[in-house]
Amino acid sequence: MRTRLTLVVAVVLCTVVVLTGQSRDLREDVERWVSAHQRTVVGELTALLSIPNAAADTPNIARNVEALRAMLARHGFRTEALATSGNPLVYGELPVPGATRTLLFYAHYDGQPVDPKGWKQASPFTPILRDGRLEDGAHELPNLAARDRFEPDWRIYARSASDDKSPIVALCAALDALKSTGRAPTSNIHVVLDGEEEAGSPSMLSAIAQHRDRLKADAMVILDGPVHPSGRPTVVFGARGILAIELTVFGPKFGLHSGHYGNWVRNPAFELVRLLASMKDDSGRVLVPGFYDGLEPLAPEERAMLDEVPDDEAALQKLFGISGTEQAGLSLQDAVQRPSLNVCGLSSAFVGANSRTIIPDRAIAALDIRLVKETPSGPMLERIKAHIARQGFFIVDRDPDDATRAAHARIVKLAVEAGGTNAYRTSPLAAESRQMVAALTRVFGLAPVQIRTSGGTVPIAPFIDQVGFPAVSVPIVNFDNNQHGENENLRLGTFFTGIATLAAVLTM
Amino acid sequence: MRTRLTLVVAVVLCTVVVLTGQSRDLREDVERWVSAHQRTVVGELTALLSIPNAAADTPNIARNVEALRAMLARHGFRTEALATSGNPLVYGELPVPGATRTLLFYAHYDGQPVDPKGWKQASPFTPILRDGRLEDGAHELPNLAARDRFEPDWRIYARSASDDKSPIVALCAALDALKSTGRAPTSNIHVVLDGEEEAGSPSMLSAIAQHRDRLKADAMVILDGPVHPSGRPTVVFGARGILAIELTVFGPKFGLHSGHYGNWVRNPAFELVRLLASMKDDSGRVLVPGFYDGLEPLAPEERAMLDEVPDDEAALQKLFGISGTEQAGLSLQDAVQRPSLNVCGLSSAFVGANSRTIIPDRAIAALDIRLVKETPSGPMLERIKAHIARQGFFIVDRDPDDATRAAHARIVKLAVEAGGTNAYRTSPLAAESRQMVAALTRVFGLAPVQIRTSGGTVPIAPFIDQVGFPAVSVPIVNFDNNQHGENENLRLGTFFTGIATLAAVLTM
Repeated sequence: MRTRLTLVVAVVLCTVVVLTGQSRDLREDVERWVSAHQRTVVGELTALLSIPNAAADTPNIARNVEALRAMLARHGFRTEALATSGNPLVYGELPVPGATRTLLFYAHYDGQPVDPKGWKQASPFTPILRDGRLEDGAHELPNLAARDRFEPDWRIYARSASDDKSPIVALCAALDALKSTGRAPTSNIHVVLDGEEEAGSPSMLSAIAQHRDRLKADAMVILDGPVHPSGRPTVVFGARGILAIELTVFGPKFGLHSGHYGNWVRNPAFELVRLLASMKDDSGRVLVPGFYDGLEPLAPEERAMLDEVPDDEAALQKLFGISGTEQAGLSLQDAVQRPSLNVCGLSSAFVGANSRTIIPDRAIAALDIRLVKETPSGPMLERIKAHIARQGFFIVDRDPDDATRAAHARIVKLAVEAGGTNAYRTSPLAAESRQMVAALTRVFGLAPVQIRTSGGTVPIAPFIDQVGFPAVSVPIVNFDNNQHGENENLRLGTFFTGIATLAAVLTM
Repeated sequence: MRTRLTLVVAVVLCTVVVLTGQSRDLREDVERWVSAHQRTVVGELTALLSIPNAAADTPNIARNVEALRAMLARHGFRTEALATSGNPLVYGELPVPGATRTLLFYAHYDGQPVDPKGWKQASPFTPILRDGRLEDGAHELPNLAARDRFEPDWRIYARSASDDKSPIVALCAALDALKSTGRAPTSNIHVVLDGEEEAGSPSMLSAIAQHRDRLKADAMVILDGPVHPSGRPTVVFGARGILAIELTVFGPKFGLHSGHYGNWVRNPAFELVRLLASMKDDSGRVLVPGFYDGLEPLAPEERAMLDEVPDDEAALQKLFGISGTEQAGLSLQDAVQRPSLNVCGLSSAFVGANSRTIIPDRAIAALDIRLVKETPSGPMLERIKAHIARQGFFIVDRDPDDATRAAHARIVKLAVEAGGTNAYRTSPLAAESRQMVAALTRVFGLAPVQIRTSGGTVPIAPFIDQVGFPAVSVPIVNFDNNQHGENENLRLGTFFTGIATLAAVLTM
């Protein structure tokens, strides 16, 4: 099965693939250059990682902006700091004589807030080197700054080591490697670096309007996120969006003795569970009318692409301790092509040692709905509301007063978190998508892992919607990087391969 | 409707009612005696309330035993402390020449643990007097010990003021009042005072076997709990039991990113809500097969009794802020004649500010099932388990290991709290029931409120099951007494009326 589909992919997506000596040489040339310049490249990264970068830390954000502009300038870019209503965008242009295409590379220079207590090192902003994964018992290696050679399994531990400073350094290194071997990018290269991504990029949409002349391009290359767990070069064409809502079903004004009033006063926890149960059946299918509206069958090429993703589902199930999946026969890749409805929290009165035999005064469910391109958040919210109303609930946006309580038997408060983030997806069949896949296939001798839609949500989706040209992610960091958590890290072998990956994209 | 039913009750239950001068005089005589002896009676109560009485406070429990034996002896009882595996039972006998019936009065001398911080007085064991309800802005009245007269609305605030020391004092006062007017009880009077009721009476069952000769009687009169909110003398023939269980449905071993794995990994919160929703329909009917097995239609007399209870359902709904009840057309009294299924707690991951978009690792529901006499806890538990298994769940009694996880898609842990407490119910049509109602009707000129089954659970139910003779509760304290909470209190007017109530029972 897999073999047959490999052929389909090879025929359909890789028609331009010719494994010429030149392409193979590019990878060898870049790897040779990286091998000789590990100390410089790693040094550039650790210097950047030494500057704290929480989005709210304005003085250090300014230091990051200066360091990034200086770094981009060293590698040939004309740079600017584009003002926004928040942190500046760092912008760089590298025009290429004769190039007729412009690629805009997006990355972000801010990082998740840190809780230093959870880090097994002096500071998340004092990068250290380990000879493997901390969780596997790896040891710290001294003299990080003085080393010339780094083994592939070694890792740099620091905030933003993976998310998202290393891709910026890798892009600069890829440009240097190309230059040293007498090659030039085949596109004009523009760079925009977001300083508020981990804070939800609140200034980005207005900044796009304000700096539209700078942010024009033929395609965007997003440098963020991890490669597929298989470690192979990866291209991601889209990401699911999210609509997070909280439902609060109201019972009596205060908890009531379940002996005295059980059977007589309605129980809000039962009302809530019946409401939730009405939303999804036993086979995992969401029952909210219209939930799947707009979804089309996959094109044969897309079908083949999904089937080619080398997910090890049996290993995941073992890791998670689960037997079977929600929808029998639905692969992980298939599952994330659809919107999902997830209960991410339940709360009503108490369980365990604090449990009391009461009819609770309220019951709360936190839901997240992962959206796909065909199911934007606005209409989805209306469908959810209509479904809830059809179950007999009166929907309110604040706790009900006495008059509301007296008028309605079933009352639910619906709160939307931040209005939702839409999905985005660039067609894998678009010209730029095919060219990028072809370039990576040429350089690595094997098609990259191609993810039609990644399950998680990226806050830049509205940005992608807005710019009006195709956007594709090319991640270059290891998937087990503890992104967003403590002890974030970067596997150096994956990072070095990423430099060759970006060199392929620069010459696509 | 109500008028017709009143007639039915009058005819059926009160056939022995003759409003003779003697009965009306009894009430007047007792009230006159109480009026003249308020200082003595209240003094006896406050002395008892000054001794701390948490069941675990062994030295003070011993002081209570001594004080109670001394008090009973003062009022003519021969007393003993009956050893148990825990706190002693205080036992007293007052033989009455010529009496052919023995009544065993049950009360308890231990109290709920206290959190003095919540009390609006120096100590829960330093009784104070207020001129009304604390919640209504009542003020403390000085010189409690020196007062000769107490208004009906005044209240004593102290732990166990209502639950359950005042009924013991009222019983002694009723005996004194009868004696002072030349009357004698019509039964031999035995008293047993439990020292562990608020701790679940763990020693009671074995104590019954050990002291069977002392605990024989023709009927038991339980002195515990509050009168009906209407304030009228009240007789309670039974109480619902309880079976409390906790269900934990297991998902992945750890919370998973709902973007990456939503739609693919089963969500334990959804599994739990579907399981709960399968248990009860929208109209409040429990769907667990056999849940209502054994229930019989009420006898016409019982039907009339339920309809006669002067519940103000509209006022309750207003107080609770609810519009309508769980089962349309089912009165509060009807509701508690049936077993109930209540969700008293839900928990899974987080809601609110702490919410995270994950597939939770587990989802927990705390349930309490209120039992009636026809639905004992053992078979009920089996029915619940069978229903859960029919929904496709594998039931475990501890967190599943890897092998269990690999073998079963749906796993639920079922934990039973303390094995359940059965309901009890004495037939309202039994001879002793009729005699007691008749006596109260005679003395007060109005039938007492008759509760076939009270909704809540009393831990002495197994004791009642065990003794083998009828048991009826005759509460004498106000219903708004903050029982079990802070600022427990006793309304003195209700208490004084309770002395006349007990005088009626003593001469039934």
